Amino acid sequence: MQIAIALYERFTALDAIGPYQTLGLMPGAEVVFVAERTGPVRDDQGRLGLVADKTFAEVPDPDILVVPGGPGQSDQMENEELLGWLRTADATSTWTTSVCTGSLALAAAGLLRGRRATSHWLALDMLAGLGVESTAQRVVFDGKYVTAAGVSSGIDMGLTLVGRIAGDEAAQSIQLMTEYDPQPPYDAGSPDKAPAHLVDRFRGRSRFREAATG
Amino acid sequence: MQIAIALYERFTALDAIGPYQTLGLMPGAEVVFVAERTGPVRDDQGRLGLVADKTFAEVPDPDILVVPGGPGQSDQMENEELLGWLRTADATSTWTTSVCTGSLALAAAGLLRGRRATSHWLALDMLAGLGVESTAQRVVFDGKYVTAAGVSSGIDMGLTLVGRIAGDEAAQSIQLMTEYDPQPPYDAGSPDKAPAHLVDRFRGRSRFREAATG
Repeated sequence: MQIAIALYERFTALDAIGPYQTLGLMPGAEVVFVAERTGPVRDDQGRLGLVADKTFAEVPDPDILVVPGGPGQSDQMENEELLGWLRTADATSTWTTSVCTGSLALAAAGLLRGRRATSHWLALDMLAGLGVESTAQRVVFDGKYVTAAGVSSGIDMGLTLVGRIAGDEAAQSIQLMTEYDPQPPYDAGSPDKAPAHLVDRFRGRSRFREAATG
Repeated sequence: MQIAIALYERFTALDAIGPYQTLGLMPGAEVVFVAERTGPVRDDQGRLGLVADKTFAEVPDPDILVVPGGPGQSDQMENEELLGWLRTADATSTWTTSVCTGSLALAAAGLLRGRRATSHWLALDMLAGLGVESTAQRVVFDGKYVTAAGVSSGIDMGLTLVGRIAGDEAAQSIQLMTEYDPQPPYDAGSPDKAPAHLVDRFRGRSRFREAATG
């Protein structure tokens, strides 16, 4: 089972690694990181380089495709190199998935029209503006399309999808071996729970602010 | 504030990325991935290459050092390239940290003798065998030494440490922007919670089995 994780400049590292560290441990899984060109792709902090081992053209028909989000997604919304590959790969995929603002790229490729999907909490209005039934749930299934909310939600998405594909025991095994027994020191992981002034601050700075207000 | 994350062949990706995606977002943080040689370092699945931008020698005195775990840790227990650097970096660090079996490398370097620390649940006996007061807590502080349990616990460790260094609001901001509001689809993330037969299966296969029984 081939799992292709798409990379582009200024992706968010954990968006890609959450699904990698869950889906990638499924029996029979074979992950490949893909991008326009092979070689290191830099993340949004610029401090991390993750190697793309294959080009998009070399991986035309993965069983599962994963699109991470990140600030760099804004530059991808008209990039036919990525969007064209998403359409091609989606044509034969068993599952088409995203984390965070990766769903905006799926939507830009025309793959989520009229479907239920999620994204980073700051990007939900933008997602709705692309003709998607935007929802704030953490992991959303609509047919073969599986979208996850912001950054860390890709871990929950990955485990959920492993359960669907390989069964509960496979997913529980991965959860146990990655010791995913979360104990966050704060309860500020969503806009409903975080201090309101922090939510307001990030809304004010968001690159989606214009889209959200108009 | 320089944060050095050490890489070696067959590290576990999320061990490194959990702290990266939390500590690295702290105001003033500057992360650098370091290894014996610069260039891509392959993880334990072999599917991921993460670029080390500096050698150990080039980063002698980080403020924070982070040692991820992974199967490759077994090969590091007598590797003076890594262990010597850990001692050097620790001599001036403000915080010395690990995720998963990274604590075994810290212990092998002689840095945890008589201290309280944790590790992956399968490695706790091995850690005790190295003269450490081994404990199954998820995040353990002992002076400037901060150790986290298996793989995903590095996220909780990172957020906790951001709180200590930069305050609650900085940590909550990072939690909010990474949407770290975990909703695992199963409750199997620790040996106390997972189905007993899965725990037994992994204990039986563990590379620490000999250490644990003898």
